[in-house]
Amino acid sequence: MQYHVDGDLVPASEATVSVRDRGFMYGDAAFETMRAYGGTVFAWDAHADRLERTVKTLGFVDALPSREDLHDRVVTTLDGNDLDDAYVKLSISRGVQPGKLTPGEAVDPTVVVQVDSLPRGGVEGESVWDDYATLQSVKTRRVPDEAIPADAKTHNYLNGILARLELRRAATDDFQADEALMRDTEGHVAEGATSNVFFVDNGVLKTPSREQSILPGVTRSIVIQLAQEEDFQVREGRYTVEDVRNADEAFLTNSTWGIRPVASLDGIEIGRGPMTTLLARLYDERVEQLCY
Amino acid sequence: MQYHVDGDLVPASEATVSVRDRGFMYGDAAFETMRAYGGTVFAWDAHADRLERTVKTLGFVDALPSREDLHDRVVTTLDGNDLDDAYVKLSISRGVQPGKLTPGEAVDPTVVVQVDSLPRGGVEGESVWDDYATLQSVKTRRVPDEAIPADAKTHNYLNGILARLELRRAATDDFQADEALMRDTEGHVAEGATSNVFFVDNGVLKTPSREQSILPGVTRSIVIQLAQEEDFQVREGRYTVEDVRNADEAFLTNSTWGIRPVASLDGIEIGRGPMTTLLARLYDERVEQLCY
Repeated sequence: MQYHVDGDLVPASEATVSVRDRGFMYGDAAFETMRAYGGTVFAWDAHADRLERTVKTLGFVDALPSREDLHDRVVTTLDGNDLDDAYVKLSISRGVQPGKLTPGEAVDPTVVVQVDSLPRGGVEGESVWDDYATLQSVKTRRVPDEAIPADAKTHNYLNGILARLELRRAATDDFQADEALMRDTEGHVAEGATSNVFFVDNGVLKTPSREQSILPGVTRSIVIQLAQEEDFQVREGRYTVEDVRNADEAFLTNSTWGIRPVASLDGIEIGRGPMTTLLARLYDERVEQLCY
Repeated sequence: MQYHVDGDLVPASEATVSVRDRGFMYGDAAFETMRAYGGTVFAWDAHADRLERTVKTLGFVDALPSREDLHDRVVTTLDGNDLDDAYVKLSISRGVQPGKLTPGEAVDPTVVVQVDSLPRGGVEGESVWDDYATLQSVKTRRVPDEAIPADAKTHNYLNGILARLELRRAATDDFQADEALMRDTEGHVAEGATSNVFFVDNGVLKTPSREQSILPGVTRSIVIQLAQEEDFQVREGRYTVEDVRNADEAFLTNSTWGIRPVASLDGIEIGRGPMTTLLARLYDERVEQLCY
């Protein structure tokens, strides 16, 4: 595999950044995870918008390359690896600066594109996950918005890692959950470590509100739009773990998984149902229509 | 300058880590910042203890090299750069792993030592800071312990960076504060972006409690010990920004600065006083006695 680092396509084994890069020293970087379907980056504009918002929050938006430039780097990386269907991670760090923690005004960012092969998506495709997700609620609380703006997607990802480590610590010989359900500091359901959560209660599609500390995922917003186009009732609100446990259906979303049904939460079976099935179908059709 | 990366001393310009290193991708790494005085690493045991606690929190303590090994790498780096008085940053990341966010059990950590020249310390030395600190309280709240354990010193440092960025945004042509005073999510004073805070109120030395979300600094604990040896009253508690503004004296501590008096908080003058002066003197004597 080849990655794109600072303008050059290099073998993955030679793709490096300085130990002085603020991405390494402080996680001082923004990123987006995307999927290419048939050579087309799905929802590129939405990802580019969010990347710009994150970099603005981090205070170096003036140094952000144009979205055409960034898109070129992604496409070059896909082409260089002869990939049409792929996972794409685009990172931009504040780069190397003199001094220590306080960021300097002059920014020469480090731009990195990593890719990996994935199966075909869309209506004709196959899912990237083998099984429905098994969810477990964890003690680790989502970092609140007042500490780090929740809508910034950054390389500070220990919060999610600590949540995932709880799954390993709680594992038995037979079972380990594969996604951690995190609550906010008020105790309401926020999100998974790398996913947004939806559930169906009496025909209403529910998901934690953007007013909470959640990362508003690109897939999340596409799913809400698809549901509204079907005239489903969608309610963004504050929910408890108990609400999700009692749901008729539940699923997770992120750009890699698309829509992934939840088999169980804390050992209690939930599973898919008609709304999950329909939304997953509509999502695949959207991908098929825009990318293949 | 030469840095130590994964067992080798290399020119700083060639000191790199893989873009797949979890330190770069997620800030999934622990670190310590220390000072060498006269070739001796000050308070090495306390730093090694905390590094071990952090790595335990991150779940890869089994992969942590022995403290003798780590100490050797630091000394090799100092010697290779012909440095006796230096800033030392020792980092250990979870390294490169297959897969994505969920950490694998098998860890081949990346160990990095960065050094930089500093003036001599101790009684005969000079301070590394030019002026007393100017402090400003900021909106960014300290990440709470329930989201990321507060006593873990990790490469997830955006919280402090965002606090420092507020100082830049609030700067005038004439003035920019140089340290951000962060409160916890309950509104009590927690710490600076890279320092602990102390203040003197009617002869009592006060500092935020370890029960709050603060990083309990090595210098902080030495200062508390020095104060107790002088039979000063030390009170760890919950304080407001107003309490600090009204203080008779205030100072910041970290391993690089040692004890740095606070000139002002939010434009209100505080300055040093007899207790700050005595503690700084005792701290310098401790350094002199242990290292030179």
